[in-house]
Amino acid sequence: METLIKFDVQNERNLTMLVDFYELTMANGYFNKGVENRIAYFDMYFRRVPDGGGYCIMAGVEQLVQYLSNLKFTSSDIDYLRSKNIFSEEFLEYLADFNFCCDVWAIPEGNPVFPNEPLVLVKGPVVQAQFVETMILLTINHQTLIATKANRICRAAEGKTVMEFGSRRAQGYDGAIYGARASIIGGCDSTACTIADKYFNVPAVGTMAHSWVQLFDTEYESFKAWAETYPDNCSLLIDTYNVLKSGLPNAIKVFDEVLKPLGKRPKGIRIDSGDITYLTKKCRKALDEAGYPDCKIIISNSLDEHIIRDVLNQGACIDSFGVGERLITAKSEPVFGGVYKLVAVEKENVIIPKIKISENNEKITNPGFKKIYRLFDKDTNVAIADVLALSDEVIDDSKEYEIFDPIHTWKRKKITNFYVKDLLVKIFDKGKLVYTSPSVLEIKEFAKAETNKLWPEILRFENPHTYYVDLSTKLWSLKQKLLLNQSK
Amino acid sequence: METLIKFDVQNERNLTMLVDFYELTMANGYFNKGVENRIAYFDMYFRRVPDGGGYCIMAGVEQLVQYLSNLKFTSSDIDYLRSKNIFSEEFLEYLADFNFCCDVWAIPEGNPVFPNEPLVLVKGPVVQAQFVETMILLTINHQTLIATKANRICRAAEGKTVMEFGSRRAQGYDGAIYGARASIIGGCDSTACTIADKYFNVPAVGTMAHSWVQLFDTEYESFKAWAETYPDNCSLLIDTYNVLKSGLPNAIKVFDEVLKPLGKRPKGIRIDSGDITYLTKKCRKALDEAGYPDCKIIISNSLDEHIIRDVLNQGACIDSFGVGERLITAKSEPVFGGVYKLVAVEKENVIIPKIKISENNEKITNPGFKKIYRLFDKDTNVAIADVLALSDEVIDDSKEYEIFDPIHTWKRKKITNFYVKDLLVKIFDKGKLVYTSPSVLEIKEFAKAETNKLWPEILRFENPHTYYVDLSTKLWSLKQKLLLNQSK
Repeated sequence: METLIKFDVQNERNLTMLVDFYELTMANGYFNKGVENRIAYFDMYFRRVPDGGGYCIMAGVEQLVQYLSNLKFTSSDIDYLRSKNIFSEEFLEYLADFNFCCDVWAIPEGNPVFPNEPLVLVKGPVVQAQFVETMILLTINHQTLIATKANRICRAAEGKTVMEFGSRRAQGYDGAIYGARASIIGGCDSTACTIADKYFNVPAVGTMAHSWVQLFDTEYESFKAWAETYPDNCSLLIDTYNVLKSGLPNAIKVFDEVLKPLGKRPKGIRIDSGDITYLTKKCRKALDEAGYPDCKIIISNSLDEHIIRDVLNQGACIDSFGVGERLITAKSEPVFGGVYKLVAVEKENVIIPKIKISENNEKITNPGFKKIYRLFDKDTNVAIADVLALSDEVIDDSKEYEIFDPIHTWKRKKITNFYVKDLLVKIFDKGKLVYTSPSVLEIKEFAKAETNKLWPEILRFENPHTYYVDLSTKLWSLKQKLLLNQSK
Repeated sequence: METLIKFDVQNERNLTMLVDFYELTMANGYFNKGVENRIAYFDMYFRRVPDGGGYCIMAGVEQLVQYLSNLKFTSSDIDYLRSKNIFSEEFLEYLADFNFCCDVWAIPEGNPVFPNEPLVLVKGPVVQAQFVETMILLTINHQTLIATKANRICRAAEGKTVMEFGSRRAQGYDGAIYGARASIIGGCDSTACTIADKYFNVPAVGTMAHSWVQLFDTEYESFKAWAETYPDNCSLLIDTYNVLKSGLPNAIKVFDEVLKPLGKRPKGIRIDSGDITYLTKKCRKALDEAGYPDCKIIISNSLDEHIIRDVLNQGACIDSFGVGERLITAKSEPVFGGVYKLVAVEKENVIIPKIKISENNEKITNPGFKKIYRLFDKDTNVAIADVLALSDEVIDDSKEYEIFDPIHTWKRKKITNFYVKDLLVKIFDKGKLVYTSPSVLEIKEFAKAETNKLWPEILRFENPHTYYVDLSTKLWSLKQKLLLNQSK
């Protein structure tokens, strides 16, 4: 049996058991204490933007929907758990008949999101709402991390093409597949990851590796073979031996000898090593002089937003960036620190807000069942601030609204002439899916539009202005009360 | 149809299409030029050890075996490719009947491995040997990265328990599942990732989250409920409100009131925030004085090898480390830069070695179909050096053998009294699987034993001695000849 299981894991998966073991010991404990159906409210949120940036791009909701729609314990899962000798039969029977029945809200993918606001909110029997913690975090943490990094890289590229090239250096298969998906959401134009194209309908691209060039007796011969195979889409990798002495002249020769007689134009040349600025300037000049000003120059080789900005500042002649390992792993800061915290429980149909104190101040939670309102300027559509409020609060955008800093409360600002958007959208109603995910390319366009509504000061790479994420007066007062109570 | 595909991706996977698009355009090009069956030799290797370490721990071979055993293009894959309008029908028919027939060698998991030596070697028709590049790299890069990081962290813990706690911050689902597997190979004692236990038979562990504590009206009540549920395995998380004022005294009270009357001993307390050194010393003293010197202290909160070494140096009283995001993403250096390079082709049954020159010297490849010999001291079993040789070379360990630095060739050393091990093991013979993977726990033990054969100077965290990876005289001479030829 074990061999069979071992072989299943890569090709046939049920991710229900991808769960931290303590979710199961706690769930069994809730049963043991008869509190499994107590209604609990959990917030998933993060505390800081990676890379010191000003915002993140929400991503991963579609995969969260898939996970929650497919929650199911197989008999082999139950047998495995029974073998641990710590779970009650009553609990195991509950798992065998598991029927997800929570309410779930999420901020739709592509929205710019900020620290301390709930990206996902779960309400339901604690035994279920607790159980889904691991996968909610894993799913949203990963894709939001990569979408955010992609967004930085694409901003640095200033409208030039960015291709995601990182599959081979991703952290696992899903790291490649969903990383490609998130990269597109963040702004990339295409990916090298074929399966991501097949599944998500995002354009897969690619030309040749050094091995193509090496397989033939000469570089010229290899280029010729390529041009003959792909006369309509001929991009040549020119750094296998020597860019300027060999790759570039051979490429031009093949453009002249193979493509020109067919009336075809070359698509591009790619350089994967060496001094990018120097080489691309030389190549651009030579291509222009040879009559190929429309031949694109494609660059790859450990690129990120800083290198891209730097070479563009230096006047490198680049049309297209292939970005690999530093995007697909978010190398400069590869952890998105989302957390999942209990914020309220119900007792006799009354919501009791809960707070978690910590010796680390930033680990103190915002209590209660909440909403997030984003306030936009009515004339410019610029996002002014987000306000966390209790779920029964409504912000009346026909009146002036005062926001204030939740720590430095004397910092206050009166907002007028605004409209308000309720950011959290219901995706499951008592376990029933009530949300349809847009396509990845639709999400990408939405992300672009919403990002354009942020102040330029928020978009800055280094030391961006901090976007306002404030608490409503009611929520702020509740938090202060609970803090005082707890510290007594 | 699209909705169906979208839902399949998470739960039912065929990873055949997880491939860089250029592998497919190249494969189609080989067909177009009639060279698809030319026999090619590829090496997968890496150029430097992450974190400035002295060695890596090989991991991922079992998953590579699964991938290569399951290569199969479905009709929907073929339809998808056909829709691109660039692939010939002849090529698509070949894919539809794809039958893997390459020879594959790999260094078995758990072996310490070093830069520039082939970890995986593939020989076969170029159309196939090229195609598997993406997944070989993705699989070995990811698991070797995490196993290597885990090995550093476990060395810092100096024999104390290390638990892998990172699923929620992993880069995708496989990042969590195979990351847990690789962490165990690298030396971790257990994981929080339940599905990894189910699939790989590695111990899953876990107790409670802050939400358990918060769900009850008081911390005391929550601890009591836990102790009553798990009297034989009672570990309490004591930092939800205040470690010293509340968590610790409540824990001791519950140990006294619930466990003691049952004749049970507490298992541990866990701290997830605050000053670890200060708090653990205080807790240790209080637990000892309360009669619980056997109660373990468990620490978690953004740990890595540096923090672990630091707090242990400061005299923190810790029995067990829960290591999360910095392990599961290898945060300090989250990319393992393995590459896959063509090293030879056959023409009329003669092996023609190939080299890739580069303006970046470290990107120059070692040509030819190779073997790796590891030389061990006969008396001490210490690993002396690895020698890359051509495949027809045999190192006679009954005679003196001279090794030399491939760059600074005047640095020479005569080795006597040694035995030699051929590191690469055949895993596929003409496409047939000829290898059985050991269990993960067996690999972990093997890794420990093999790591113990390295000089302590190689094990150092900072500025370790560089282990010798030399070329045989024959291979070195071949490389020089090809370099001279190419640069003409």
